[in-house]
Amino acid sequence: MISTAPPRSAAVPETTTDAGPTRPRAPRDGRARVVIENVTPLVDGGRFAVKRSVGEAVRVEADAFVDGHDKIAVAVRHRPVSAGGDAPWHETDMAPLVNDRWAGEFEVFAQGWHEFYVAAWVDRFATWRYDFGKRVAAGQDVRVDLMIGAEIVADAAANTDGEVARSLQGFSAFLRSELKDEAIEVALGGSLATLMRRHAPRRFMTETGAPVRIWVDRQKARFSAWYELFPRSASPDPGKHGTLRDVEARLDRIAAMGFDTLYLPPIHPIGRQFRKGRNNNPVAEPGDVGSPWAIGGPEGGHDAVHPDLGTLADFDRLVRAAASRDIEVAMDLAFQCSPDHPYVKQHPEWFRHRPDGTIQYAENPPKKYQDIYPFDFECDDYEALWNELLRVVLHWVDHGVRVFRVDNPHTKPFPFWEWLIAEVKKRQPGVLFLAEAFTRPKVMYRLGKLGFSQSYTYFSWRNDPYSIEKYLSEVTQSPVADFFRPNVWPNTPDILPEYLQTDARAAYVVRAVLASTLCASYGIYGPAFELMEGRPVRHGSEEYLDSEKYQLRHWDLNNPNSLEELLKRLNHTRRTNPALQHDRGLRFHASNNGAVVCYSKRHGDNAVLVAANTDPYHTQWANLSLDLEAIGVSHDQPYQMHDVLTGARYRWQGNQAVVGLDPGSTPAHVFIVRRKTRTEHDFEYFV
Amino acid sequence: MISTAPPRSAAVPETTTDAGPTRPRAPRDGRARVVIENVTPLVDGGRFAVKRSVGEAVRVEADAFVDGHDKIAVAVRHRPVSAGGDAPWHETDMAPLVNDRWAGEFEVFAQGWHEFYVAAWVDRFATWRYDFGKRVAAGQDVRVDLMIGAEIVADAAANTDGEVARSLQGFSAFLRSELKDEAIEVALGGSLATLMRRHAPRRFMTETGAPVRIWVDRQKARFSAWYELFPRSASPDPGKHGTLRDVEARLDRIAAMGFDTLYLPPIHPIGRQFRKGRNNNPVAEPGDVGSPWAIGGPEGGHDAVHPDLGTLADFDRLVRAAASRDIEVAMDLAFQCSPDHPYVKQHPEWFRHRPDGTIQYAENPPKKYQDIYPFDFECDDYEALWNELLRVVLHWVDHGVRVFRVDNPHTKPFPFWEWLIAEVKKRQPGVLFLAEAFTRPKVMYRLGKLGFSQSYTYFSWRNDPYSIEKYLSEVTQSPVADFFRPNVWPNTPDILPEYLQTDARAAYVVRAVLASTLCASYGIYGPAFELMEGRPVRHGSEEYLDSEKYQLRHWDLNNPNSLEELLKRLNHTRRTNPALQHDRGLRFHASNNGAVVCYSKRHGDNAVLVAANTDPYHTQWANLSLDLEAIGVSHDQPYQMHDVLTGARYRWQGNQAVVGLDPGSTPAHVFIVRRKTRTEHDFEYFV
Repeated sequence: MISTAPPRSAAVPETTTDAGPTRPRAPRDGRARVVIENVTPLVDGGRFAVKRSVGEAVRVEADAFVDGHDKIAVAVRHRPVSAGGDAPWHETDMAPLVNDRWAGEFEVFAQGWHEFYVAAWVDRFATWRYDFGKRVAAGQDVRVDLMIGAEIVADAAANTDGEVARSLQGFSAFLRSELKDEAIEVALGGSLATLMRRHAPRRFMTETGAPVRIWVDRQKARFSAWYELFPRSASPDPGKHGTLRDVEARLDRIAAMGFDTLYLPPIHPIGRQFRKGRNNNPVAEPGDVGSPWAIGGPEGGHDAVHPDLGTLADFDRLVRAAASRDIEVAMDLAFQCSPDHPYVKQHPEWFRHRPDGTIQYAENPPKKYQDIYPFDFECDDYEALWNELLRVVLHWVDHGVRVFRVDNPHTKPFPFWEWLIAEVKKRQPGVLFLAEAFTRPKVMYRLGKLGFSQSYTYFSWRNDPYSIEKYLSEVTQSPVADFFRPNVWPNTPDILPEYLQTDARAAYVVRAVLASTLCASYGIYGPAFELMEGRPVRHGSEEYLDSEKYQLRHWDLNNPNSLEELLKRLNHTRRTNPALQHDRGLRFHASNNGAVVCYSKRHGDNAVLVAANTDPYHTQWANLSLDLEAIGVSHDQPYQMHDVLTGARYRWQGNQAVVGLDPGSTPAHVFIVRRKTRTEHDFEYFV
Repeated sequence: MISTAPPRSAAVPETTTDAGPTRPRAPRDGRARVVIENVTPLVDGGRFAVKRSVGEAVRVEADAFVDGHDKIAVAVRHRPVSAGGDAPWHETDMAPLVNDRWAGEFEVFAQGWHEFYVAAWVDRFATWRYDFGKRVAAGQDVRVDLMIGAEIVADAAANTDGEVARSLQGFSAFLRSELKDEAIEVALGGSLATLMRRHAPRRFMTETGAPVRIWVDRQKARFSAWYELFPRSASPDPGKHGTLRDVEARLDRIAAMGFDTLYLPPIHPIGRQFRKGRNNNPVAEPGDVGSPWAIGGPEGGHDAVHPDLGTLADFDRLVRAAASRDIEVAMDLAFQCSPDHPYVKQHPEWFRHRPDGTIQYAENPPKKYQDIYPFDFECDDYEALWNELLRVVLHWVDHGVRVFRVDNPHTKPFPFWEWLIAEVKKRQPGVLFLAEAFTRPKVMYRLGKLGFSQSYTYFSWRNDPYSIEKYLSEVTQSPVADFFRPNVWPNTPDILPEYLQTDARAAYVVRAVLASTLCASYGIYGPAFELMEGRPVRHGSEEYLDSEKYQLRHWDLNNPNSLEELLKRLNHTRRTNPALQHDRGLRFHASNNGAVVCYSKRHGDNAVLVAANTDPYHTQWANLSLDLEAIGVSHDQPYQMHDVLTGARYRWQGNQAVVGLDPGSTPAHVFIVRRKTRTEHDFEYFV
């Protein structure tokens, strides 16, 4: 006989796990027969955490099977990861779907790290019981089989103590008794099965390797409505430089519209050298205010407030005043310097130097951006640079900032962001980061994996139903949704999409409806959006004419055409309908008109259905074929569609519906789906 | 300043790799900016090896990108894993596809383990050169930029020595020279670029983690034609028990048909207790020979030869005689025992015992298989059992067997097979294992991952074009093709599919054509197949009437209806057309007739196109829409379709073609695609 012992051959990779991230465990017993494969969610094999927010469900799936015909049991074990010590594992049964796939679900209730793994084992009793049922049905002599069952139950009894052990001993004895018919009934009954599922020993159990990590954010990471404005344009007096105090005076209006996040472009001192003039003129005129993203001047750098905007104390006041209205102030993180930034003198080693002795400015050849010096993240002193940038973030965290919008993160190294975000969250786990990376898809996804809480998207350029369905389906469903949270904007100071370069109010209405109902997080750049500013700097450009990036603007907030009322209604609908606060429940429905998009969102009992005409110039009729299961109604019952934009209520039944969407009056329906119910007096109504 | 150093936070999983299996490396430098993700091929995150055969290409793909606008270089590094020591790494450049995906390809020439990983780095010179070109095109002053280029080249020179260093020093000096126009030309020229790609230092390179392992089999793992026969039916005299010597006498016929693997059902002694009679009768009559899978009797067990078949020496003779005709003898491994097997007495601890003292026979309640005792792979002494089974395999390896057909591997533990196959391959890497697991898809795939070289498939039940396309596409393309090699059989002793329960010769012809051309490995159970034995034991059963599993059969090999000629032609076509020896090149083409399937296979210049009528009773016409790229011809040139079954040659052009397939004469075309070429005298012909 060959003397080689069974444990694994050296020719096979020395991992002992079947799925998920690999971490050596004790050598696997050759009798651990159950296989677990393809555990989800899992991001890049466990390299990155799965993202969830407080109160969300984690649906775990895995392939699990065993050789032969034995029945198996599969469970997911999960727990919060506490800093102090290991919390106990909670166990949730997983149930079979089809094709050897199993699923189980648990909720995460606390902010911070959680983890889970999957365990599976041969369920000896379930196997025996299943076969036993077939033997009994076939009228076979089952005397010996009852004895086998009694042994299995006795084995479980020996594995437990107290009441359970006594109970199982009793069952075991009964199976051995002379009362064959009763013994058969007991053997096949539910009580014994339940006890055995809980208390039978799990011999040769298979467990997946290192637990899958879940990072649980506070709810705002999942559900937020952003409003962006330039503080320097916030003065009520035309031509006057606005201040943080002026912004404070705007808070009531923003709160009334229902936004919960106020994002300010950089509020730091602005450089003088190569300052840009109005409409991005390479030469500034005297009095031109420059771009807020050309950060740094004699007054200070990334930790200072522009003197024309006010003081750090004004900022603190604004943060507090906003908080009292349930609004958070989001700060811009633009890690770049003007030539006048204090770092340029204090830390020349953090910049790249050209052979002629000058510092390398930003370029996209042949374009030159001489007002901006990028950091050299590859410099010898990069660790000091990284730590200084962390200090800047923590400085603003100390001033109450919990949300950061990060400017162009894709032009700084990925390892830097992974480190920075982790360092910040270790100190203050509630801090959220929005990635402003309008770049290639895999780069954007990588930033999500690294820890960004939300990400800008291609939504601004997805204006037709086909593109909207394709893109939004991709970013709201797993596996992308496990690490990437879309935040959709119809416009930004950098993006006036061609679609909005129009006088057609319907274009703005539809984009507001789509943004606020497609995604649980959205934002607008105002007041340009609600006042429907649609003039580009020139034909073919997405830049605004007279952009606030380079000059002060005065906005007529009392303009009767303002979309303020619409935004208020949409944000109210979002706040009162959980379906709009989650993205996983998004489903598209068939429309026979290529200009009309139809989709629903659902969370629990709450369902909202939207039908929108993406043609802002013509009325479009569409036949809709609804996926009734997605909106939680049945074929045989009428349901009420309650349009929150007009107040109209329609009674529908079945999956066929017709909508006529007139850009002048009703470019979109936002329906709350109300299902029929009956009172005790049999009076039907819709809830 | 916060004193925390940049290296990674504890809150992030402590892996340092970006893709593939994880193995801790030195802490990553924060300046290793290039990201590598989603490396393929990779089986279950590296848990299992990728499979290839000698001479096959390994196409490696990966997502690779960096922050900002820098150009990157990506390469795959690969080598055979030698037992003695580490072989040097070979490097193959990877080229960009779209969407940040890169690809590179290398071939594996030796049987055994290979490995690869992906490396990527910022290509400073390429970045500089790209920007430089744009500056020059824009007419900018590039004096400083030439100096920057000269520095980059000088840096590379310092990284090398000898001729290359001197050459790079020369280039660097030239870029600094006063000859600006010439310097620009040199800077943008190909010579410098080539030198720099090879010799520039790769600062802050990113490498994927533990290399991906590839197991390279000998070619037979990929390309094989199997013929199964029952030796006991091989006697030329009706009613007489055939012998291994009789099989020897059949070798010339099998070789003439073009088969290269002769698979024999178990040749061991057969049990007496509960022996099955003819047509699976639970009671055997005197003289009944029993099932060869009820292994073991007083004459011996799994290492013995049934005395009625001959001796071990006869077996050795057969193996040698087959080898002289380039045929390998494949041995059945059926790890189960008859009640008369020597193990039952010698090792009762390897079986499960019932409370009444009897040994547990095989069951699928309410069915009982009392002639079979399964091993108890969970017994306390399982290591001894495993080693004994390994000894059995090595016993037959010692007798020249290099191919095993494993009976029902899915009813034995997965860890057992992974261990057994690895142990055998450590000793004899050329041994191949065919998994006979007709079970659920994920179980079959797991067996492939564990090390089985080939697998039986659902082909036997895929008889219509839609199912054929769906299933064969799945099993011949990555990722499944990286661990699962299909071996398709129109029939087996256990499977007479309903489709073949017919007198229609065309059904057999089409199944032979499909099996031999869809997959590089196929087999038939003969002579039942070529003699078109189609009688089931009863209506609704897939069991043969008078099955050889339970009795001797005498086959009239001289029957003029035999498909021998067809099989000979098909196997010859397989041997002379590399396209049919590989599965990755399989592509399906659109047919407008639901009964006609059309597909092609291609390898290098060789392409074969098949159109087959799956309706064995009626002539079917079909319009085909060909994917011309898949068969390597262009729209603007005629090509010749040479049917190897009839010898007919058709001249086609463009992607539209019509076929008329008459079950009586031409149920299928097997076309070699011949492309036009011209002689030096401009006489066109097709090759």
